[in-house]
Amino acid sequence: MSCSPDRGANLARAIEGIREAAKLGARIICLQELFGSVYFCQEENVDWFDAAEPIPGATTEALAAVARECEAVVIGSIFEKRAPGLYHNSAAVLDADGSLLGVYRKMHIPDDPLYYEKYYFTPGDLGFQAFDTRYGRIGVLICWDQWYPEAARLTALKGAEILFYPTAIGWHPAEKAQYGPTQIDSWRTIQRSHAIANGVFVAAPNRVGIERPLTDSPNRPANYQGIEFWGGSFVCDPSGAILSEASRDREEVLVVECDLNRVDETRRNWPFLRDRRIDAYEGLQARYLGAAR
Amino acid sequence: MSCSPDRGANLARAIEGIREAAKLGARIICLQELFGSVYFCQEENVDWFDAAEPIPGATTEALAAVARECEAVVIGSIFEKRAPGLYHNSAAVLDADGSLLGVYRKMHIPDDPLYYEKYYFTPGDLGFQAFDTRYGRIGVLICWDQWYPEAARLTALKGAEILFYPTAIGWHPAEKAQYGPTQIDSWRTIQRSHAIANGVFVAAPNRVGIERPLTDSPNRPANYQGIEFWGGSFVCDPSGAILSEASRDREEVLVVECDLNRVDETRRNWPFLRDRRIDAYEGLQARYLGAAR
Repeated sequence: MSCSPDRGANLARAIEGIREAAKLGARIICLQELFGSVYFCQEENVDWFDAAEPIPGATTEALAAVARECEAVVIGSIFEKRAPGLYHNSAAVLDADGSLLGVYRKMHIPDDPLYYEKYYFTPGDLGFQAFDTRYGRIGVLICWDQWYPEAARLTALKGAEILFYPTAIGWHPAEKAQYGPTQIDSWRTIQRSHAIANGVFVAAPNRVGIERPLTDSPNRPANYQGIEFWGGSFVCDPSGAILSEASRDREEVLVVECDLNRVDETRRNWPFLRDRRIDAYEGLQARYLGAAR
Repeated sequence: MSCSPDRGANLARAIEGIREAAKLGARIICLQELFGSVYFCQEENVDWFDAAEPIPGATTEALAAVARECEAVVIGSIFEKRAPGLYHNSAAVLDADGSLLGVYRKMHIPDDPLYYEKYYFTPGDLGFQAFDTRYGRIGVLICWDQWYPEAARLTALKGAEILFYPTAIGWHPAEKAQYGPTQIDSWRTIQRSHAIANGVFVAAPNRVGIERPLTDSPNRPANYQGIEFWGGSFVCDPSGAILSEASRDREEVLVVECDLNRVDETRRNWPFLRDRRIDAYEGLQARYLGAAR
């Protein structure tokens, strides 16, 4: 999905897409990261905090209604206002009866040119979770989390059999020719690897379209041209094989059948969970274990 | 490299390959897993323990001599006899002056039809390490370890800038047509993902050739046809891009230039180490965190 500055239109468009997906048989439906607005983290602008809302709130209520109507689980990524001065990049999980099953708050927060998320989002404090939905036990992680094997592993250890990664990632247009293909391949590869390492399905919905922020920011790089979100949403199976993949530049509703029996079947044949050396993983809680250099 | 039942011939062939690699400019040279023998773990046969040897021992002395001669670091995977009844699947790191820099003992031990490693190898107790060689700080992990993001992460946190994975993996010939391409793609993908997640180079030398064990074993599956080792040795850069890849069925000496400045450069642009949530990773030391099902 692409987004416009009109937030009401984005929500309406998302609901339309949810209905279309449900009509095509979808049972668990995930929107891309921060689907309600343009990707405002391109700039540090204090006014954007006005776009945040509580959970539950207007957006989760709208999503709950369509979830109930379609009898589908809906995962919606929301700029959450938790308290004055305390904001999160969160995802709400609405069960197929419209009930708010839970919330995941993005744990790993990026900060790179045009992705100034540390300015807006307090790191999550709800940890890594799995949610027992009507149609399966799922996990939700958000965008930058997708680069962390620890996040995928912990969510799978909680019992999740599908990992969803609502995402907003794209190219700096000036870099696209040189680095674009490698960047998207790294992005696919790291997420496919989570499927392989954990024997789970992975679903990554990303946004499409070129976006520039509406206001000026002193933080912008000199060669600022906005972000071209690279789409390429995909679902892969527990062997990491891509089952279906969307285009780089068009909105699409991707409906993919995931046979959850494949999880146990895959893990029986590739029993990675059996052999983890949990007696030797303490160092994963360290920042670094080597000498300074 | 492929192996024959003649262990002396395998060692001679390995030394010949090391000399050839060094002549082509190689500075750090890694042999495939258990290069000194056929892959005996296809059967559980007590006589194979006679093939184990101490470290240091005859094989590490031979590798040390060629390392000194070529002024190259040599990584050799060895069936290690540590004490009566205590054997490991190990890798010795010989520095470019021939000194024994250290030993890694395989931490994750597989056990699957035709890969009966738990019978032979005691799980390693030296943990995950990095070795300061003359030509760079490297890590060594062995085969099954390659499926564990924890192993790669811990080795990178120790400071390793290249991860070496001596490997012996192949197809069950009866499964190759149906599962072969997916299996090799999973194998490449998971290792490329370690490069991406950690911003390091990854080098995976695998064996080639079809091998059957020399004796009969009651453990063999009925449709036993041996293992066809799938080669495909490769080196990838810190973005996971494959720099060079060997064939599936021929012996090859792969010499690949790795500019270690790429490690810091990649990590500056993809600063994953900066944002790890070390306060939230304690669960990685658990076997499972969900409800039984």
